Amino acid sequence: MSGLKPETRKHLLQVGVANIANTLLKRGFRNVIPHGVRPLNPRQPCLVGEAFTLRFIPAREDLDHMGAYNRDDNLHRVAIETCPAGKVLVIDALGSTAAASMGDMMAWRLVARGVAGVVSDGGFRDSESIRLTGLPCYAQGVAIPATPIRLHPVALEEPVGCGGVAVYPGDVIVGDVEGVAVIPATLVDAVAEEAFAATAYEEFAAEQIRAGRSLLGLFPSTPESRQEYEDWLQGKEHT
Amino acid sequence: MSGLKPETRKHLLQVGVANIANTLLKRGFRNVIPHGVRPLNPRQPCLVGEAFTLRFIPAREDLDHMGAYNRDDNLHRVAIETCPAGKVLVIDALGSTAAASMGDMMAWRLVARGVAGVVSDGGFRDSESIRLTGLPCYAQGVAIPATPIRLHPVALEEPVGCGGVAVYPGDVIVGDVEGVAVIPATLVDAVAEEAFAATAYEEFAAEQIRAGRSLLGLFPSTPESRQEYEDWLQGKEHT
Amino acid sequence: MSGLKPETRKHLLQVGVANIANTLLKRGFRNVIPHGVRPLNPRQPCLVGEAFTLRFIPAREDLDHMGAYNRDDNLHRVAIETCPAGKVLVIDALGSTAAASMGDMMAWRLVARGVAGVVSDGGFRDSESIRLTGLPCYAQGVAIPATPIRLHPVALEEPVGCGGVAVYPGDVIVGDVEGVAVIPATLVDAVAEEAFAATAYEEFAAEQIRAGRSLLGLFPSTPESRQEYEDWLQGKEHT
Amino acid sequence: MSGLKPETRKHLLQVGVANIANTLLKRGFRNVIPHGVRPLNPRQPCLVGEAFTLRFIPAREDLDHMGAYNRDDNLHRVAIETCPAGKVLVIDALGSTAAASMGDMMAWRLVARGVAGVVSDGGFRDSESIRLTGLPCYAQGVAIPATPIRLHPVALEEPVGCGGVAVYPGDVIVGDVEGVAVIPATLVDAVAEEAFAATAYEEFAAEQIRAGRSLLGLFPSTPESRQEYEDWLQGKEHT
Amino acid sequence: MSGLKPETRKHLLQVGVANIANTLLKRGFRNVIPHGVRPLNPRQPCLVGEAFTLRFIPAREDLDHMGAYNRDDNLHRVAIETCPAGKVLVIDALGSTAAASMGDMMAWRLVARGVAGVVSDGGFRDSESIRLTGLPCYAQGVAIPATPIRLHPVALEEPVGCGGVAVYPGDVIVGDVEGVAVIPATLVDAVAEEAFAATAYEEFAAEQIRAGRSLLGLFPSTPESRQEYEDWLQGKEHT
Amino acid sequence: MSGLKPETRKHLLQVGVANIANTLLKRGFRNVIPHGVRPLNPRQPCLVGEAFTLRFIPAREDLDHMGAYNRDDNLHRVAIETCPAGKVLVIDALGSTAAASMGDMMAWRLVARGVAGVVSDGGFRDSESIRLTGLPCYAQGVAIPATPIRLHPVALEEPVGCGGVAVYPGDVIVGDVEGVAVIPATLVDAVAEEAFAATAYEEFAAEQIRAGRSLLGLFPSTPESRQEYEDWLQGKEHT
Repeated sequence: MSGLKPETRKHLLQVGVANIANTLLKRGFRNVIPHGVRPLNPRQPCLVGEAFTLRFIPAREDLDHMGAYNRDDNLHRVAIETCPAGKVLVIDALGSTAAASMGDMMAWRLVARGVAGVVSDGGFRDSESIRLTGLPCYAQGVAIPATPIRLHPVALEEPVGCGGVAVYPGDVIVGDVEGVAVIPATLVDAVAEEAFAATAYEEFAAEQIRAGRSLLGLFPSTPESRQEYEDWLQGKEHT
Repeated sequence: MSGLKPETRKHLLQVGVANIANTLLKRGFRNVIPHGVRPLNPRQPCLVGEAFTLRFIPAREDLDHMGAYNRDDNLHRVAIETCPAGKVLVIDALGSTAAASMGDMMAWRLVARGVAGVVSDGGFRDSESIRLTGLPCYAQGVAIPATPIRLHPVALEEPVGCGGVAVYPGDVIVGDVEGVAVIPATLVDAVAEEAFAATAYEEFAAEQIRAGRSLLGLFPSTPESRQEYEDWLQGKEHT
Repeated sequence: MSGLKPETRKHLLQVGVANIANTLLKRGFRNVIPHGVRPLNPRQPCLVGEAFTLRFIPAREDLDHMGAYNRDDNLHRVAIETCPAGKVLVIDALGSTAAASMGDMMAWRLVARGVAGVVSDGGFRDSESIRLTGLPCYAQGVAIPATPIRLHPVALEEPVGCGGVAVYPGDVIVGDVEGVAVIPATLVDAVAEEAFAATAYEEFAAEQIRAGRSLLGLFPSTPESRQEYEDWLQGKEHT
Repeated sequence: MSGLKPETRKHLLQVGVANIANTLLKRGFRNVIPHGVRPLNPRQPCLVGEAFTLRFIPAREDLDHMGAYNRDDNLHRVAIETCPAGKVLVIDALGSTAAASMGDMMAWRLVARGVAGVVSDGGFRDSESIRLTGLPCYAQGVAIPATPIRLHPVALEEPVGCGGVAVYPGDVIVGDVEGVAVIPATLVDAVAEEAFAATAYEEFAAEQIRAGRSLLGLFPSTPESRQEYEDWLQGKEHT
Repeated sequence: MSGLKPETRKHLLQVGVANIANTLLKRGFRNVIPHGVRPLNPRQPCLVGEAFTLRFIPAREDLDHMGAYNRDDNLHRVAIETCPAGKVLVIDALGSTAAASMGDMMAWRLVARGVAGVVSDGGFRDSESIRLTGLPCYAQGVAIPATPIRLHPVALEEPVGCGGVAVYPGDVIVGDVEGVAVIPATLVDAVAEEAFAATAYEEFAAEQIRAGRSLLGLFPSTPESRQEYEDWLQGKEHT
Repeated sequence: MSGLKPETRKHLLQVGVANIANTLLKRGFRNVIPHGVRPLNPRQPCLVGEAFTLRFIPAREDLDHMGAYNRDDNLHRVAIETCPAGKVLVIDALGSTAAASMGDMMAWRLVARGVAGVVSDGGFRDSESIRLTGLPCYAQGVAIPATPIRLHPVALEEPVGCGGVAVYPGDVIVGDVEGVAVIPATLVDAVAEEAFAATAYEEFAAEQIRAGRSLLGLFPSTPESRQEYEDWLQGKEHT
């Protein structure tokens, strides 16, 4: 069960990741977008959910081989089997595409279990097949070699780095067509509300700009333009 | 108003960027393709226009924050509001995708102002929305974080580097589905004519190759094959 | 004429590159996937064939210029004209996208000659046009500058590196929608058979997982689950 | 003539670059150390002075060749001949060691002219010979190829980037045995004073730590430990 | 108290890291040398000890600032205060030199506490001063910016990655003038003995090679050359 | 026996690598300095000799293991045993420091055989011990892991790339305290003579600059300053 308020979730589904980055920057957070992490499928649904983390370290030949995946206590498999429904599996794959951090069988299993999506700073194999699952998946790219060639799953639900950004279990992950943002858990309601308001204003501003108006005095907003926006909003509601 | 001759513009719209690179290499120019700069949208129109440059330097926290974009003299905004119609905004973004060098509001404004396109060696945010504008846009990729996190706009219309290539204001930028070429202003008419002729010959050569002919004696052209081409051309014109 | 057994070729066309990587890992081969090499066109056919290699070294201005491509003994051109039908042209382009390792004229010629496909750890120019040829082509990406700006063709049919992987002439190259695998020539029949069997089992496992079954005890397979699979297979054959 | 107050200069000569970074971080400046820029000679004197900037862009074959250095208006040469005595020549060399941003003749000339030192985010040639000049020089490393192979000098005294850090003309550069810091001009007196005080405290703390005391309650300082330090200082002055 | 047998420690102090890498490769371990990790001071003593690990993740502005180092529960400080005497502090600094993973105060404290040395895949600040401590220190290089600019200490004594190599608490770290090796704890006695024997043989081989003998039949050793070595050894013992 | 004329060798021993780069640039050669290749020991003698090349490709586990070095036909060993006296062993190590391209035993053997030196674009192990041999050695840095972990020796005396520069067998290699230059074999006499003349002029220019003279009109030389130099030279000879 997700701890996110329905209102917050609703807002986050409608704001872009770029707007969340702006909102967090105003609060002093400059590093909230995992670098190089992109949607596997540009047409996949948006992603909102709390982070459930999996941490990899470099592989070692005696511990990491194809046989390691036959063990029921292999933490890569345990992560797939225990990440709660509605949460986002966030994988610290050392930023490496030298080995796969997930394949299609695992993706199908996450779908069956109701997991919201996956974010990895490494890569996925079977990417075409993963696209068919419909699961919102974010990574640096394709990574075909088998996981144990480079990666050893070592822990669940620890704070990790992902694409150079800190992710604490329970942080809120939002993904859109460009990438993902990480929102510290305690700020999520305020950030969602503020980003939602900014997104609504941008709809007004875009309409004005397309009609030929200058950016100056309009975007970013000024007190005067925000008043205009309020009037425009009322006008829309009356029609 | 563009200073490009109509004939030159017409030729440049029909030649590929690779052919321009060949033509410039024959004149001794080895470095005319900004490295890693790709079209945001493979289906966007081709781009031809003179360069109008914007230079960024690294950001500094006291000068660069969300509030900086409320100032009318912010040079990033001034660039968008003053780049002449028909010209190409060329952005030296330090080759970094750590912060956005443009977003969708700015793109809509450039469209309204009749700017021909944008070339950045950094990245863009709101990339999906920018695609909707139809503006020919070239960059290294997506860059979601807000501009002031990493970039400070410092000057307009200075010589800059873009993707490792020198761009002087007034140089001619040509973009196709693969990337862009930078043509020194004084050479543009000659380069356009020569590249256009090469492109026409390639149509002939491709037809021959598809029909089973060897590359040898045909591509690159020889005096004999150029004669054949002339005959082929006449044949086509007579039908 | 290809030396591949028809059965082996048939199997390789149906297994994914990831499965081949798994199979080779079990035999101790950890480095069989050229890094960063992707299909030019995600919808191109799969690729199977023996490697015919072309090796580049860095260019030198007195030897490498546009005129070098007028010589009939230019090895880049010779490679295109002599790579046997059914084989895969594997190009060691020093992992560089600073200059093109192939353009569309060469691709059309390879199609005419019946070559199976091309794998380069550099880049291609005229990529849109190459896509039209239908030739399965793999590379790191687009590379617009003319070949002699950075690359000198120096030898055919020597052992080379491609994307950090050793390729010996005659090794078998398999390409799918994600990338390519290099199979040592002596192992190809055994690898094809084993990877094909693994692929068939995965069809069964995916069906079970989509129906809600856990990965544990199913994927990777156990003696029990392989028995189940045999039963499932028989069930399918009877319907 | 330097605009630095004697007291400020004296303090800056005694504090390490790391301490300046700490002091600036407390004021919100996180990016003040040009990345990868190291002293050419670990035994060279420390460096303090105001920045005089030189900006390079990528070279172009028609403008950049050995002959370009015979022109008296070549800005690389002009920079060497006009950088004021006591200032630091800061070179934006695009972070590239593909061509030299200075050689020994230029270094000897800077010494003769009384320039305080040089900071480049590229490299130097003739590095052994430059070491003999005694001039404090900082760069990414050695760069042997001639400047016009990759770099074109385009402007003096503009704001630039150096090692990923903004440098405005007049900013104060401090260099020690590890690297350099860039202090915004308006903050230099306050930063110098605060960093000097921190350095003095560290002398006390190091003595205590070497004598076996824990870091906790000592470093960073607490109100109690600062009182201790004051007492220790008085003790030292009385002896 | 170290768990290393005195004989094992004695052997490890006399073998080079390269010999340890050879010995581990024969057992199938290909990845035991943290990449890019070098001694801070080429004249520092060799290092042998069991790993005590500290893990960093990327910093977050609300948690990581200069003030964080005033807290007694800051894990970076706790690591310095609790790493047992005789052990090696191994730091997973994300391979980044963007912020310091240790400074001189911490180094002095480690010396006072009897810690054997430090290995970081990031960088150190105050490197000159650290050299004075005599503590064997290994890192990628210098990193001047304050730790909280990029790094957050998050855990002690967990398995980590360091320079791309897995390090489990208790693994044995050996450092020489070139870098460090990581030996899995259970293998250390056997590896030490075998590497020591190989080192002794190399002394014999080097003497022979300097006297003009070919590598063939001598290095690597053959049964015959090992017999020669035994005779040589006896000869030496008798003199 | 070296094919170099004594006069040419004498000149090359006295000119710096930077001067050779200048001389070659005037002839249109822009890429003659292997990037990132530095002397192992800044105090080693200068290096002049013709290139004898060794080419590596990526290793493959069945061919490359510690046992491979027991074979007398291992080409890495054969290179060491057959490189002619007076020549320079140039190693194409794929620019990788992931495995050693030479160790101390091989260096001792090269000394015994009278080889002039070694240039690798990879790294060396046993670097301290190699320094003791006195052999002029150039590489990217230290590389501790055993060769077969990443590199397979595949051919001798083929054209190769080294640090991004083409090296043909017989090209002349010159190394100084900064790095190496590669001179095409046919140009070596002319380049040596011209670079030697430039070096002599620089002695004059440096003296003038140290005495306070401007770079302008002096360096690079003008017809007038060259006349002055002739006079100065005569003056020196008369004393």
